[in-house]
Amino acid sequence: MSSVKRTSRDIRTANRYEVLRQIIAKSPTSRQELAAATGLSLATVATLVGELLDLRMITEVGFEDSAGGRPRGLVAVNASGGALIGVDIAETYVHVELFDLALNVLARAEENVRPGESLPEQMVGHVAAAVGSVVAQAGTEGARVLGVGVSVPGQVDRATGISEYAPNWDWHDVPLLDLLTEHIAYPLYLDNPLRAVAVAELWFGAARGRGDAAVITLGTGVGAGLVLDGGLHRGVSNSAGEWGHTTIVLDGRLCHCGNHGCVETYVGAPGIMLNLRELSPRSTLLHPEDQTATIAALARGAARHDPVAVKVVRDTARYLGAGIADLVNLFNPEVVVLSSWVAAALGEPLVAEVREAVARHALPRPMAATEIVLSQIPSDPACLGAATFALEGALQSVGQKPGTRAAPAASRSRPAVRRRGRPEERERLREHP
Amino acid sequence: MSSVKRTSRDIRTANRYEVLRQIIAKSPTSRQELAAATGLSLATVATLVGELLDLRMITEVGFEDSAGGRPRGLVAVNASGGALIGVDIAETYVHVELFDLALNVLARAEENVRPGESLPEQMVGHVAAAVGSVVAQAGTEGARVLGVGVSVPGQVDRATGISEYAPNWDWHDVPLLDLLTEHIAYPLYLDNPLRAVAVAELWFGAARGRGDAAVITLGTGVGAGLVLDGGLHRGVSNSAGEWGHTTIVLDGRLCHCGNHGCVETYVGAPGIMLNLRELSPRSTLLHPEDQTATIAALARGAARHDPVAVKVVRDTARYLGAGIADLVNLFNPEVVVLSSWVAAALGEPLVAEVREAVARHALPRPMAATEIVLSQIPSDPACLGAATFALEGALQSVGQKPGTRAAPAASRSRPAVRRRGRPEERERLREHP
Repeated sequence: MSSVKRTSRDIRTANRYEVLRQIIAKSPTSRQELAAATGLSLATVATLVGELLDLRMITEVGFEDSAGGRPRGLVAVNASGGALIGVDIAETYVHVELFDLALNVLARAEENVRPGESLPEQMVGHVAAAVGSVVAQAGTEGARVLGVGVSVPGQVDRATGISEYAPNWDWHDVPLLDLLTEHIAYPLYLDNPLRAVAVAELWFGAARGRGDAAVITLGTGVGAGLVLDGGLHRGVSNSAGEWGHTTIVLDGRLCHCGNHGCVETYVGAPGIMLNLRELSPRSTLLHPEDQTATIAALARGAARHDPVAVKVVRDTARYLGAGIADLVNLFNPEVVVLSSWVAAALGEPLVAEVREAVARHALPRPMAATEIVLSQIPSDPACLGAATFALEGALQSVGQKPGTRAAPAASRSRPAVRRRGRPEERERLREHP
Repeated sequence: MSSVKRTSRDIRTANRYEVLRQIIAKSPTSRQELAAATGLSLATVATLVGELLDLRMITEVGFEDSAGGRPRGLVAVNASGGALIGVDIAETYVHVELFDLALNVLARAEENVRPGESLPEQMVGHVAAAVGSVVAQAGTEGARVLGVGVSVPGQVDRATGISEYAPNWDWHDVPLLDLLTEHIAYPLYLDNPLRAVAVAELWFGAARGRGDAAVITLGTGVGAGLVLDGGLHRGVSNSAGEWGHTTIVLDGRLCHCGNHGCVETYVGAPGIMLNLRELSPRSTLLHPEDQTATIAALARGAARHDPVAVKVVRDTARYLGAGIADLVNLFNPEVVVLSSWVAAALGEPLVAEVREAVARHALPRPMAATEIVLSQIPSDPACLGAATFALEGALQSVGQKPGTRAAPAASRSRPAVRRRGRPEERERLREHP
């Protein structure tokens, strides 16, 4: 029995994503432009556009002249056709954003997670409060929420909605989706920040239209969301992308995963703090117990050519360069994107050093094919990516029997979608064919 | 402009591969069994089976009773429907095998590459002689050769047929396919052993029916062919899989690629010899200048519990374990296959140590989903894989206009197919619809 099933349904879902991605990227647009941009036939594009019109995710917005031919119909994303909520649960905060269908932020809420707060119930409380806040802020928009995507660090089982392992809180097998369902009535989609950030770049950032990309998350934790053949690579149990726990220094620094010499122990925020401490134990750049302040101080120091800050950035780039070269040699991607708050804070000076370091370590052929860039997504990419999981969930419902929800295409790790059993909610969902 | 194009043609080619794979695995079989095994609809299977019948790659072989229903038609691979040649060019030998369509070996030839021989013309001479030998041995079978797959170490540009970089011979931009076309009239397909061995496991070995697999080549050189979502992952410039050149010991042993601490420097045959030399410089196990003899001596030594041999196998497994754990954490594969001559020589004792070492380094969730096995392919997997590239090439010609040859599905790195311009050859090809 083969576990590999590719069906025309899978391809259709992938193509539906691609067409909506293009429309969001450039509205208004014509079916002809979409066919040229996606490589799909005009007939296929016309069918997919029809489905998106039926879902009210896009609208007809007029015509444009075509040289000598019939005027071409134009479509645009129907920003007010629904709302999406993205939740980014992190070690030190919970961010929640409410988006329209063009993925503009309509409302934001943030909860601080106090040191010591680590119980699932505490996190769920923060999420419930922040989701309530954005729905309240959005007013009537709140009635049209299509789904809530939730990003939580660590290993996640999408099929059961369980947070299997979150090292920073020592969570093991927490039924997070069940806990959230107690408070949130909208369809919920659970995944982790590596995949959320990768999907944000795939839909809205540097990985859009690229076949193969690695999206590096550089924060307290470290990982690489993998976009392969134009789709997110999840692996057989939804735990691919743990680049932070690949070994670059055998028998090196002890990692909280139990291994030694993991990439994360050198380039995650605590690792960078250790790089600084080893170089200059009494540096004024060092804010013990405060990662954010230390990284900000390093960024300011590097900008004014403080030799210690410059050296720490260079050392960090050396580790990053070796680790990213591993990804380049293994995957041969078109683009490597550096994302998350540490990358944003250290910015282009870090990326320039990283490019040089990768070139020293990678083989010439894959190196020549790879671009290394800083993420250009302006807001929290994990929120945006989590909202995108909810958008993908809504798109998968096309052509389903009423009341059923599809598993994602080309994935054997099916997401749990939890809904409270309110009949009026169910009815609303059935309106979508 | 998107570089990601998924068409129904791509999916059809992938499904055609999958159906033929199943028929080769189990002949005779019914369309109903094939539908169950592949997850495709009976209608789709019937269409694909029809195409394979038209190509004479399979034949109708009778009927079986179905409980109460109509008798079911049975099909089987048409072993004599054509022949395929696989060429494995390695540092110390050229192996060539001629296969029937059931991938049984009908003829074999081997040329020794003498120390110092490294010119492209010398290698091409060996290939031409060995191909001539297998065609002569096969007699009338030779007239039905559908194609010749050629595996050559290093970085290969399939689109131009150029060996871009072969480190052990210091080849740079050698137009290998053009040189081979001077001697060989059949359609030629060039690729490297990482991908050949992976495709052999995907069609005939432990990766068959698995979504995600890593096939480790453990020889003089080291790499990992990646099977993702049921297909070979090539990367944007056909150079994915260079696991041998990922860093596990930052600033470690110097590698011929110019980097330090590459996996290959610890677990390739020369690396294992160095592990032995560092442990016991005067060991009688060590045959300087002879990798094959040293690895064989280590295998025999480990079998008789020689403490030095046992320790070298354990040390090697420790490096391998860290490197394979990186693949497990990054890709989350279903299976990791250890292949090539060093893995075959050191066998299960090595694999048992490797399993323990990987478990020490990998995260629990992806580790739990991964099986680590020794390749069960009995003959030269690079020859078998190279022949499979020729088989895939023949399958891609389905539905093409006569005289044109398809690029592979879902790949932006299109293979060059070179043919001598003999009219009778061209005619033969046109017979296939």
